[in-house]
Amino acid sequence: MHSSPPALERLVQELSKLPGIGRKTAGRLAFFLLSGDREKMESLASAIVEAKDKIVHCNCCYGFSETEICQICDDPRRTKDVICVVERASDILPFENSGIHKGLYFVLGGVLSPLDGIKPETLHIPTLIERIEKENVKELILALGSSPEAESTALYIDRILANTPVHRTRLARGIPVGSDLEFIDDITMLRAFEERVKI
Amino acid sequence: MHSSPPALERLVQELSKLPGIGRKTAGRLAFFLLSGDREKMESLASAIVEAKDKIVHCNCCYGFSETEICQICDDPRRTKDVICVVERASDILPFENSGIHKGLYFVLGGVLSPLDGIKPETLHIPTLIERIEKENVKELILALGSSPEAESTALYIDRILANTPVHRTRLARGIPVGSDLEFIDDITMLRAFEERVKI
Repeated sequence: MHSSPPALERLVQELSKLPGIGRKTAGRLAFFLLSGDREKMESLASAIVEAKDKIVHCNCCYGFSETEICQICDDPRRTKDVICVVERASDILPFENSGIHKGLYFVLGGVLSPLDGIKPETLHIPTLIERIEKENVKELILALGSSPEAESTALYIDRILANTPVHRTRLARGIPVGSDLEFIDDITMLRAFEERVKI
Repeated sequence: MHSSPPALERLVQELSKLPGIGRKTAGRLAFFLLSGDREKMESLASAIVEAKDKIVHCNCCYGFSETEICQICDDPRRTKDVICVVERASDILPFENSGIHKGLYFVLGGVLSPLDGIKPETLHIPTLIERIEKENVKELILALGSSPEAESTALYIDRILANTPVHRTRLARGIPVGSDLEFIDDITMLRAFEERVKI
């Protein structure tokens, strides 16, 4: 688009850096932003700048926060002895949306991958172990993904805590609620069958 | 998501106002922006602000521009007597991408819709007619959509110019290049059949 204004071209380029946004979608978003009143552009830009300036990582769980200690870690109503371990800060969201977890979180920052140079020290694993030793943690829910790396990370943490009284659990695997059986992949079916429960 | 930082919540809300971006995708985009280095947020925000401040409508064709007269209208190499009439400023893009149109553009700003109160004066139709009368326009390519409103808008402009020497044309309708015939909708097939051309 050699004849488009440079500022428009730059906006399209910046938008197309977002995940899942190709050049065409970026163009559509740019035109949407330009077509209405200019206030919505102002308010989107300021929301981005505000998030950039205000949001940091919680010093306790490494989740997103606007304060040194996040609202979850700081909430006296939450049980302190159940910690849900996740890969990324964004993984906290689905738990909070469901409201099922009343305890705290801990963000690892990734999963172990020796070939990529990601060792326990690269992640927050030493801090997690330290926290478990200091605090009276009863249960650690290892809510990591199902990739081989995630599974071996869970296994690694499980082994470190083998001689402690801390319960290590993981989320149930099985058929998603409301799913049609014919659309279930083989591995999920295998897991759901193996881990079947008594009615 | 009652426990997420307000700045994050606001960013998700602003992003979900974009077309085709639901709450889940907005959350994903927000987490993407927050996860890497903060420079990319700065540069996206500044691209939005820059576009907001710099981009205006061309005084001649009503397309997007950073100057009073856009680069296309101002380009001496473009033929001035062929004008391609489009609904929205964003419709100029596919023509420019293909590079096929060597003339100028004119953005109507919409299509006639008497029921919604959109009359010729609401759009830029009087300005278009004035421009045709003043300049020596040879051909007007009415590249409007195929909705009933768009078709009647094209017909309306066609009738106004009935007694002038201006050629009125429209884009060919037919099977898109590379499309499989089995995926063609009935109306496109009807048009493609009716407007078939000699080999």
